[in-house]
Amino acid sequence: MTAMQDHDVLVEVTRRARELTDPLLRAAVDRMGPELAGIGGYHFGWCETGAPGGKSVRPALAVLAAEAVGGTGEQAAPAAAAVELVHNFSLVHDDIIDHDERRRGRPSVWAVHGVPAAILIGDALQAAAFEVLLGAGPRASATGERLAVALREVVVGQVQDIGFTGRPWLGPDAVTRAEYQAMAEAKTGALLSFAACAGAELAGAGEAAVAAFDRLARHLGLAFQCTDDVLGIWGDPAVTGKPVHGDLREGKRSLPVIAALSTGGSAAAELAALLDDPEADLELTARIVEDRGGRRFAEQEAARHLAAVAAALDELTVPPPVRTALDALTGSLIGRTR
Amino acid sequence: MTAMQDHDVLVEVTRRARELTDPLLRAAVDRMGPELAGIGGYHFGWCETGAPGGKSVRPALAVLAAEAVGGTGEQAAPAAAAVELVHNFSLVHDDIIDHDERRRGRPSVWAVHGVPAAILIGDALQAAAFEVLLGAGPRASATGERLAVALREVVVGQVQDIGFTGRPWLGPDAVTRAEYQAMAEAKTGALLSFAACAGAELAGAGEAAVAAFDRLARHLGLAFQCTDDVLGIWGDPAVTGKPVHGDLREGKRSLPVIAALSTGGSAAAELAALLDDPEADLELTARIVEDRGGRRFAEQEAARHLAAVAAALDELTVPPPVRTALDALTGSLIGRTR
Repeated sequence: MTAMQDHDVLVEVTRRARELTDPLLRAAVDRMGPELAGIGGYHFGWCETGAPGGKSVRPALAVLAAEAVGGTGEQAAPAAAAVELVHNFSLVHDDIIDHDERRRGRPSVWAVHGVPAAILIGDALQAAAFEVLLGAGPRASATGERLAVALREVVVGQVQDIGFTGRPWLGPDAVTRAEYQAMAEAKTGALLSFAACAGAELAGAGEAAVAAFDRLARHLGLAFQCTDDVLGIWGDPAVTGKPVHGDLREGKRSLPVIAALSTGGSAAAELAALLDDPEADLELTARIVEDRGGRRFAEQEAARHLAAVAAALDELTVPPPVRTALDALTGSLIGRTR
Repeated sequence: MTAMQDHDVLVEVTRRARELTDPLLRAAVDRMGPELAGIGGYHFGWCETGAPGGKSVRPALAVLAAEAVGGTGEQAAPAAAAVELVHNFSLVHDDIIDHDERRRGRPSVWAVHGVPAAILIGDALQAAAFEVLLGAGPRASATGERLAVALREVVVGQVQDIGFTGRPWLGPDAVTRAEYQAMAEAKTGALLSFAACAGAELAGAGEAAVAAFDRLARHLGLAFQCTDDVLGIWGDPAVTGKPVHGDLREGKRSLPVIAALSTGGSAAAELAALLDDPEADLELTARIVEDRGGRRFAEQEAARHLAAVAAALDELTVPPPVRTALDALTGSLIGRTR
């Protein structure tokens, strides 16, 4: 499969997922009344021509999981819409928390409508996810508890991530690789898991298939985070849309840095001093992280998690066209395809 | 029934509701991990001896609704816990939005732990409400959609209330009594309705009984808001814990003011000018609102809604001890009993 074919497959599955979820999303936001519907429409980019929406990765995963077990995308639609609502709720609140003034190339919701409105539209989007799911018949309702647990995981992961910032780079209180993995799985893997598992369940999947999708999605979330951390230091700003060395400038406890520091000794102490120095040469810091094996470790971890994704897929004996689409989606999430 | 007996009945039902919900609330907050559990415990007042908790009005209503239809408080416990989690989620987020630095006589969550932590604990409390409800068996799950719809109503009511503040006092854009009622029903009635209806449903109530509880709870919410608005201008600070004439000082579009202005003419224009004047004598403003019939109208509305509550109760043929407790709870919410 060439990159171009991958791209076409991805465009097609994303379009299909959007067609299935968009009417549910728009109806959910319309039910919120004119004030909130306007703010929600702004966030989703429905009010302007050409405003970039999200990538619909999670809805596409829900649709493909249903198709993978012999069902249809229509069956997965309530789960696809619910996960997209939750994902967007968390984006709106995260932008307040992280003081991010931009989202998808436009001012973020709080920057335009203020913090109170952004808190409230986020709250309403979370509630709407449950309304869509629990209103879509008994089979969809049965996935509601899974959504609630995933939401708890997402919030806990976010809290852990924020808590990392105040920690020392070295010593017994430094962030460990195990802590990093738990945070990344909760923050990213849990919602991907909901998308895949609920999509499969709505199509009538058995327990073993759902368990395989859970593993697949959690490893996919971890692969994404590991790759994102590499791009956060060495990524090309023209591709990532983020400043070069951004994660180093922000003092983020990212996997390459954690791994580089974990080798200990005086070199680790030197690196920690550089990381704490706001005047440090970030080019030099990045080189040291790379020389100490931080980049290689994160790339190996990403590859390990991607292999686990592939193993879970092999276990599922997915129909070839669906497998192709799942491979393309997986590739897009870890940045192989743009 | 004397006020003292009412008080005893209320203390007893509140104690019972707390015994049934507290273990569920604590387990839900514990599942959030140490950081969030600490913040949640602070909000609920679990970490200090003598910290005042909430009044548990909503859990008590869920328990009494179950008992009213021949069931037990145990059956209503998942609904009672869910409504208390949602109520507290909305308090935590409202305090950020309204910039309220105090809650139940202590610094509010955001004032102690910061806005990001307060946003996240609120999000986690909302998710926990669904986790408790949807994890408590199929009958409780069936009330999940009702919770999602109620949550949407609460957020919409909050948005409407905030939107009132920027509106003119007079003219075609002034807040109408109908708009006030829609806001009050959404902001307060919807969650009371969830508590009563879900409590009754969990005890096996039929559609007619659930519909009666919905009416009861929505009128109770409106009676509460009308009374609260009267207390917000003329209440004794020693009893309400709020400053005298507080709602006038804040420029709140409260029912007595809306009603006083709706009589129109030059007197209404004079009142509007006073309301817009930060130097105005609030004692005088309050007297004019009263002279123009604003207080009487709000008190009559409260009485009308309370009569509708009683009519719904009559329709339900509730066992006498449960009726006594429901009357005491109703009385406490509109301030007859402290």
